[in-house]
Amino acid sequence: MPNPTAAMLVIGDEILSGRTRDSNMHHLAQRLTEHGITLAEARVVPDEQGRIVAALNDLRRAYDHVFTSGGIGPTHDDITADAIAVAFGVAITHRADAMALLAAHYERAGLPFNDARQRMARIPDGASLIDNPISTAPGFTLGNVHVMAGVPNIFEAMLAGVLPTLTGGAPLLSQSLRVNRGEGEIAGDFAALAAEFSDLSMGSYPFNTNGVYGTNLVIRGTEPARIDAAMTRLAALFA
Amino acid sequence: MPNPTAAMLVIGDEILSGRTRDSNMHHLAQRLTEHGITLAEARVVPDEQGRIVAALNDLRRAYDHVFTSGGIGPTHDDITADAIAVAFGVAITHRADAMALLAAHYERAGLPFNDARQRMARIPDGASLIDNPISTAPGFTLGNVHVMAGVPNIFEAMLAGVLPTLTGGAPLLSQSLRVNRGEGEIAGDFAALAAEFSDLSMGSYPFNTNGVYGTNLVIRGTEPARIDAAMTRLAALFA
Repeated sequence: MPNPTAAMLVIGDEILSGRTRDSNMHHLAQRLTEHGITLAEARVVPDEQGRIVAALNDLRRAYDHVFTSGGIGPTHDDITADAIAVAFGVAITHRADAMALLAAHYERAGLPFNDARQRMARIPDGASLIDNPISTAPGFTLGNVHVMAGVPNIFEAMLAGVLPTLTGGAPLLSQSLRVNRGEGEIAGDFAALAAEFSDLSMGSYPFNTNGVYGTNLVIRGTEPARIDAAMTRLAALFA
Repeated sequence: MPNPTAAMLVIGDEILSGRTRDSNMHHLAQRLTEHGITLAEARVVPDEQGRIVAALNDLRRAYDHVFTSGGIGPTHDDITADAIAVAFGVAITHRADAMALLAAHYERAGLPFNDARQRMARIPDGASLIDNPISTAPGFTLGNVHVMAGVPNIFEAMLAGVLPTLTGGAPLLSQSLRVNRGEGEIAGDFAALAAEFSDLSMGSYPFNTNGVYGTNLVIRGTEPARIDAAMTRLAALFA
């Protein structure tokens, strides 16, 4: 059976303007690959409700899971939760369990639980909360959509809570061979080997380090013995 | 007049599997912002012709420009040029000017100009070449789509050649204020200021550095005097 599929939706003007470099996509890609879920697409959209809703509805219908990052804080530009509610056609309210979590957090911190902070308890109807062990304000899962914070350490902590609850497939394994030859030199033999091992995926990635040109050849698949067999052949060709 | 819009399409299994961290999106975002072109969306898709064609046709119809990265090398997994030809419904051939560039390059290098390397001269009909000052194999522009390499230094060099040929708008300027207060504390006043300066865009980005929580408040716009006026008010509120 093929592995489940997933998409990522990164929400935030700050990524598209170049102010901030997204790092959550790379982290998610690595964790999903280990867990046997195929990250099949990623998108970045600005903080505009119409754009978030349209992308989310595309992605949640096309893939088994959607992971979002960004836009669930207390400020006026945090509009993700409302956009998710619109996309699913459900109401959104200050939910009692999220209010209780946040009220206790701000009481411990000696800070007022003001309107802006209460905004982080607004959760679309039907969602389940995702634990935030770092700053309390929860993410949530609605249907096949997992809504998480954009701040990297909080995104990573939320993902660590969600991922064990999802059924994964066989982890995607990979082996690489670094050769000090250009892609153009090895392309013919490499393509022939890829055609012979059509159950595996083979990719080549050129590098240029301090003026030395070469290529990393990567073999990916779920069967260790097949990857070993292909790597043995590859090494004999180019080592 | 609003600034021209653009989208980026990153093509490559290696990004989605987590093997490689994309850096071209962040670089493009910064250069476009300086040039007065709004990066409005970004997508990452795998090395599959159908997925590349579908994303490309969505994006080239929705935005003024599309920039792609990846998949124009000599190996079997480099399928971008063919996908672009399919998306535009045009033929693709080994083009004479690209063949001449590459033949001269490999002759200088004393390397055979074999089938794989000749593959990099395959250019869809009607395209104009984008110069590659690093490794010769050209990118190309077809309609409003600019097709560039995935290797970061080559992507950056190609972009540096393309960008001056594109009409930009007013560069998007920004100023930021770092405050040692949580987002929840400043959100109310910040939202009121954003509503008052509705011609500007204001965003807040929480940080947590060595246990110190705070927020970077960013004001963006194209009129320096307006940004100054808003920043003066912001500093008075929170400094």
